[in-house]
Amino acid sequence: MLSTCLRRESTHLRRYSSLAKPITLGFRRTMSSTPVPGEQFRPASRVASQKQDVWSIINEAATNSPTQPIINMGQGFFGYNPPKFITDAAKDALDKVDCNQYSPTKGRPRLKKAIAKSYSPLFGREINPETEVTITTGANEGMLSAFMGFIEPGDEVVIFEPFFDQYISNIEMAGGVIRYVPLQPPKNGGTEVSSAGDWTVDMAAVEKALSSKSKMIVLNTPHNPVGKIFSKAELQAIGDLCVKHNLIILSDEVYDRLPFTPFTRIATLSPAIAARTLTVGSAGKNFYCTGWRVGWLIGPANLIHYVAAAHTRICFSSVSPLQEAAAVGFEKAESLGFWEQSRKEMMGKVERFCAVFDELGLPYSKPEGGYFVLANFARVNLPQDYVFPSQVADRPRDYKLAWFLIMELGLAAIPPTEFYTKENMWMAEDWLRFAVCKEDDVLEGAKERLRGLRKYMS
Amino acid sequence: MLSTCLRRESTHLRRYSSLAKPITLGFRRTMSSTPVPGEQFRPASRVASQKQDVWSIINEAATNSPTQPIINMGQGFFGYNPPKFITDAAKDALDKVDCNQYSPTKGRPRLKKAIAKSYSPLFGREINPETEVTITTGANEGMLSAFMGFIEPGDEVVIFEPFFDQYISNIEMAGGVIRYVPLQPPKNGGTEVSSAGDWTVDMAAVEKALSSKSKMIVLNTPHNPVGKIFSKAELQAIGDLCVKHNLIILSDEVYDRLPFTPFTRIATLSPAIAARTLTVGSAGKNFYCTGWRVGWLIGPANLIHYVAAAHTRICFSSVSPLQEAAAVGFEKAESLGFWEQSRKEMMGKVERFCAVFDELGLPYSKPEGGYFVLANFARVNLPQDYVFPSQVADRPRDYKLAWFLIMELGLAAIPPTEFYTKENMWMAEDWLRFAVCKEDDVLEGAKERLRGLRKYMS
Ligand SMILES: Cc1ncc(COP(=O)(O)O)c(C=O)c1O
Ligand SMILES: Cc1ncc(COP(=O)(O)O)c(C=O)c1O
Repeated sequence: MLSTCLRRESTHLRRYSSLAKPITLGFRRTMSSTPVPGEQFRPASRVASQKQDVWSIINEAATNSPTQPIINMGQGFFGYNPPKFITDAAKDALDKVDCNQYSPTKGRPRLKKAIAKSYSPLFGREINPETEVTITTGANEGMLSAFMGFIEPGDEVVIFEPFFDQYISNIEMAGGVIRYVPLQPPKNGGTEVSSAGDWTVDMAAVEKALSSKSKMIVLNTPHNPVGKIFSKAELQAIGDLCVKHNLIILSDEVYDRLPFTPFTRIATLSPAIAARTLTVGSAGKNFYCTGWRVGWLIGPANLIHYVAAAHTRICFSSVSPLQEAAAVGFEKAESLGFWEQSRKEMMGKVERFCAVFDELGLPYSKPEGGYFVLANFARVNLPQDYVFPSQVADRPRDYKLAWFLIMELGLAAIPPTEFYTKENMWMAEDWLRFAVCKEDDVLEGAKERLRGLRKYMS
Repeated sequence: MLSTCLRRESTHLRRYSSLAKPITLGFRRTMSSTPVPGEQFRPASRVASQKQDVWSIINEAATNSPTQPIINMGQGFFGYNPPKFITDAAKDALDKVDCNQYSPTKGRPRLKKAIAKSYSPLFGREINPETEVTITTGANEGMLSAFMGFIEPGDEVVIFEPFFDQYISNIEMAGGVIRYVPLQPPKNGGTEVSSAGDWTVDMAAVEKALSSKSKMIVLNTPHNPVGKIFSKAELQAIGDLCVKHNLIILSDEVYDRLPFTPFTRIATLSPAIAARTLTVGSAGKNFYCTGWRVGWLIGPANLIHYVAAAHTRICFSSVSPLQEAAAVGFEKAESLGFWEQSRKEMMGKVERFCAVFDELGLPYSKPEGGYFVLANFARVNLPQDYVFPSQVADRPRDYKLAWFLIMELGLAAIPPTEFYTKENMWMAEDWLRFAVCKEDDVLEGAKERLRGLRKYMS
């Protein structure tokens, strides 16, 4: 998405002033005495925030960088196509009448069956495709459906920081109140290479975040942006706590096919934990097609029922021909060795890319899974007199680092403090997140640009 | 969707007792003393309704009809494929890396541009593709985004009866309170063929439905299920009222390419009306691909901005390769004569199908646009001793008619009282809705089955 915008809109100009301009929106003008027709409609508070989000700041910066084209390792979309057996399946589906019309609201039976079949061995139990799987419009709308299905105004939801940013608006849309628990960053993350597993869970903090209003906890493993795979012991402790406090567990496992270390699914730990766990998946992440918007939830029938009911009210049904293609994807992936190939390939990309940090002596957090790498730029000295536009100057150091990398090196990465509450932003202000799901030559280009940092390092 | 289910699940048995069985769901059992693990999660009230909806009642009936396969004129999906120039465009898109990855949250620039270009002449003004168009996951999620963008808990929304059923849950999900205004059915609709235009708006009732909390009014033209195209005078009166009371107009025009009589868009009536109008469209309806889930809203930038913000929070972005294909659809439709062909073809289907009602002497409401026909079955006598299952026996006569047609004739249609509040259901209890967007031989088969009604007519 970012790179698309860039090619189209790049101006080769440094228009800091225009970037810094706040968006002026009609409803603010109603405060003056004469409302202009059509400008007097106050938006709902759930969408009224004027704060620019990280994506538009980074996009705008990238558009305006003097180095064009930008190398974009910001947003987590793939720099290459899904495998041919899957795009071919999509093309076949486009020739079938029923594959172009509304699918059942809970999803196409073929896809639910293929998912149940693929996941039953991984869950260690027979998953019922009709009652224990439901298809959604990407993992994103799937999680919104879970919140809409179970969260009433005032119910509390526990999430970890850093978080996938959509959790926030999705929980709040259902009227939920969020309780945050930060992952503890690796102690020497600013000076030494660490493992994503060194970002740890403070169980006392989790327990402290719970109250009589707690209804749900959201997990993400493999984790975005940290790359952590929650250990079995961590999951057991969290699961036990959820059983004790009768919480629903929403386990976001969209990077489940990309584990580089042993991967445990919380739903497999005990029947009592399974009975409260909704596991989220994404065809976009599994099959390199983030733009297809096919996701799913797996869980006990009495939970899935209401997720599906919410999904029906939100999207009615999900995209039919690409559901059919995802079904074929699951039917064929194992026998074609796709999962293993995909995992190895991504592990290779992580290694290839991280080599530049070893070269530069910049510490990073080695991912245990997924396709994001966090690197630590404490050692990079931003020039004292460097001028940042106001929307960046007001934010933590990682925003300035990201801005600087875009403007001076032509490389886009994501500042992870965006995925923290104000209180805990300090934990991530020296880090940047790089998405390595890109062609190897793009990774090499990025490494070459990063070498330009040398002159800013002490 | 219906026909898909049928082929897969038909049992050729009349299992009335199993159909009548209420769905027993876990959370109800919590009322007993020992909660079963995983069954103690109370769903949010927005999804907790136990009432079976029309679609599952009709689906189940169809599955259990002794006549198989059922001819399905219930749900409004097409019985044929999109035109080849559009499926070809989708196949081409599947070969392009950026068409398989996340699109910008507001939609692909190419699609926004194509929509702006196609609609600018129809709106009589230049539509800005960047600020006045936003892409959504079908018209459905587009409307949800509009409600989520502007409705706060307690805000009131006026809708007409009969309504498109998703409006209700969508408005309520945003916390909105619905004020209903019934369209007045044609006076002699039970005895004579009438025009869908004879379903009229009682402007006094509209005005009475307004209060200081009113925020929005929802229009649907061409109308589902009535087939009415709101007249210019009606739209002017409604528009003037909205200007006077400062309401946002959400005009659901998903059947806009299928008008059989002159079609006015409310956004074209005056700048003051345009400044408050969001117009909703659907690639699914325009291009015969209801399963693609590509929709859009067109409107002033200060309204579109917040619709897009809500959409981002709901679905993040919409399906990329099919957005690209829809763009090509708009780019080519006019020059290929597709719109005109599509309109003529559907008009032909309406005429072809309605001929059977003329034959039988059953009155119907001639649609002015869209692909639904309402026919009146007051003259059909249901056998006095006919046994209906409880979920049908408890409902208005149109449910019994629909059940009877499915069981005795093997033809599925939709009982329109589902699209009314309890208070006004009587207005529609003799009508059934037929979707004519099916192959001609299917329509002929349906006509043949309808001829079986003769023996039940006085
Ligand atoms: C942790 C996490 N969950 C969910 C999603 C959304 O997945 P989808 O594209 O299927 O909606 C993402 C995408 O970046 C993610 O990183
Ligand atoms: C009046 C009306 N609006 C909206 C929709 C939904 O359109 P989409 O399939 O694009 O979500 C329908 C579908 O039946 C409809 O009849």
